[in-house]
Amino acid sequence: MARTPAASVPERVLDGQQAAAARLMRDLDDRVPEAIVALRELWPHTGRAYVIGLTGSPGSGKSTLCDGLIAWYRARGLRVGVVAVDPSSPFSGGAILGDRIRMQRHATDPGVFIRSLATRGHLGGLSRSSGDVVAVLDAMGYERILLETVGVGQDEVEVASLAHTSVVITVPGLGDDVQALKAGTLEIADLLVVNKADREGADRTVHDLESMLGLRQGQEPPPVFKTSASQGAGVAELGLALESRRERALGPDGEERRRRRSRVQLLDILRDRLTQETEARLASAGGIDALAVEIAARRIDPYAAAEKAMDALLAAPRSV
Amino acid sequence: MARTPAASVPERVLDGQQAAAARLMRDLDDRVPEAIVALRELWPHTGRAYVIGLTGSPGSGKSTLCDGLIAWYRARGLRVGVVAVDPSSPFSGGAILGDRIRMQRHATDPGVFIRSLATRGHLGGLSRSSGDVVAVLDAMGYERILLETVGVGQDEVEVASLAHTSVVITVPGLGDDVQALKAGTLEIADLLVVNKADREGADRTVHDLESMLGLRQGQEPPPVFKTSASQGAGVAELGLALESRRERALGPDGEERRRRRSRVQLLDILRDRLTQETEARLASAGGIDALAVEIAARRIDPYAAAEKAMDALLAAPRSV
Repeated sequence: MARTPAASVPERVLDGQQAAAARLMRDLDDRVPEAIVALRELWPHTGRAYVIGLTGSPGSGKSTLCDGLIAWYRARGLRVGVVAVDPSSPFSGGAILGDRIRMQRHATDPGVFIRSLATRGHLGGLSRSSGDVVAVLDAMGYERILLETVGVGQDEVEVASLAHTSVVITVPGLGDDVQALKAGTLEIADLLVVNKADREGADRTVHDLESMLGLRQGQEPPPVFKTSASQGAGVAELGLALESRRERALGPDGEERRRRRSRVQLLDILRDRLTQETEARLASAGGIDALAVEIAARRIDPYAAAEKAMDALLAAPRSV
Repeated sequence: MARTPAASVPERVLDGQQAAAARLMRDLDDRVPEAIVALRELWPHTGRAYVIGLTGSPGSGKSTLCDGLIAWYRARGLRVGVVAVDPSSPFSGGAILGDRIRMQRHATDPGVFIRSLATRGHLGGLSRSSGDVVAVLDAMGYERILLETVGVGQDEVEVASLAHTSVVITVPGLGDDVQALKAGTLEIADLLVVNKADREGADRTVHDLESMLGLRQGQEPPPVFKTSASQGAGVAELGLALESRRERALGPDGEERRRRRSRVQLLDILRDRLTQETEARLASAGGIDALAVEIAARRIDPYAAAEKAMDALLAAPRSV
């Protein structure tokens, strides 16, 4: 097939052009229809990247660890994409000076592509946006994708589920944090990291985590690593452990997880589309907002309002 | 109308029976149809409670502050409901010993009702569940409802939007945290609290916040309070400030916000119902999971799969 003189967006993305990819990611975020068409063309070219989730609360130093892993992978000649979904991450724009300086070393490296996503104000869910960005990076040929998330809320856990392998990061001496981990984040951890391990109490935190993890039923407990990312300590060990899991994660053993991930992505897109469609169906009656006004005035309860919206949606042939 | 000898669930809830209310909240969480019917009967009795959001990351001491506010309100003879949506909160079960002991003083007080919500594993969204719990507490006659959230993710911000007045809590010396606040949480703050104000750097944090807030366009900056909740310092001032905003929040000035809240609740219920409905329509073809398998195998992209699901949903008359 003859190529047109001006290459299409998917062609330019497959060719690894960062500017075209950045533009496409922005357009996907804005739900530009042509961008979705482009993503669909890229889809058959995805599925090769190894996606690694890095989850930890603000202050856990996960951006520094992420930075260390980028360098480790680059030294091995692998291209690295980064998706930062964390309001406090230097990768997502909330930088403090030291981190910004550290990041400079990757800024001019064409083998690294960093994309940040705001955790709020998205059209549709965060897992839709993150999934789209991962797909574009994957199609571009980035071999490893680091997905940085805060991992506190439901939404963040959904985002973390996009990863083939999930690393949960904590630091010594945060009693509350271990509690928070206990309450949910541990479920998603394939590997645990106690970062800032030069701090007092690191061994105790490792011990606490290991005892906690030993209690999980019917699962092999995930290994716990100690790192001091700011000094580069432990990063290589973590990198090797991640690599040793790659084949399994991308092979048949990882299928169940890939299905769960696909389900999350699908539901996110579907809910978004159904909201649009409902809004269109209700437009002549003032849209979803008109129902919200009725609820606020206590003239209708939210469940009855939802049924009304469903009736409007399901009564007639689709409009958009 | 003659009352049946055994009072109905709504009657028992309106009568203030905590066991019946706890049961109803659990059933609502499980989407038991009768529970939704009961909630709809309670709806006309809601709208009286003043809902106060307390948002802050784990370690900000917001549970201790929450505890202080409960005591402050109880001393004024007001009944207080608490909804804790925070995996690390003692109210939501991730307790460390000191907090548990502190809480004991409210455990036997019939004027206090504490309900925790897990941030994960909910059927439907967290704002649906939180909205339901707030409605039940409101109908029961709790005059103040404290809604404790982590406020990092999109989901938590939606939950925080259920409050009439939102308090965002931070602590001194967390550079990262101020950055995180900057990135989003500040938007929702009506009042700010620097808790653990006996720590070094409290005045500087107050100053930083005030400079940051002064930059918001076209809005009166929210006031910043200093508290040391564990010593009870500053709690009364915060309580008075919250009360001074009550009338405005519940009156015409608060209407826009109440509409936004109603929209969030409605969309949450609607999306949940539409997912159920889609699942039912696709049942004979293996449900949403069958599409997820196709996506995982890269035989279809998620957007095309979503369109397929939409077609199935909108093609025939509703089934559930």
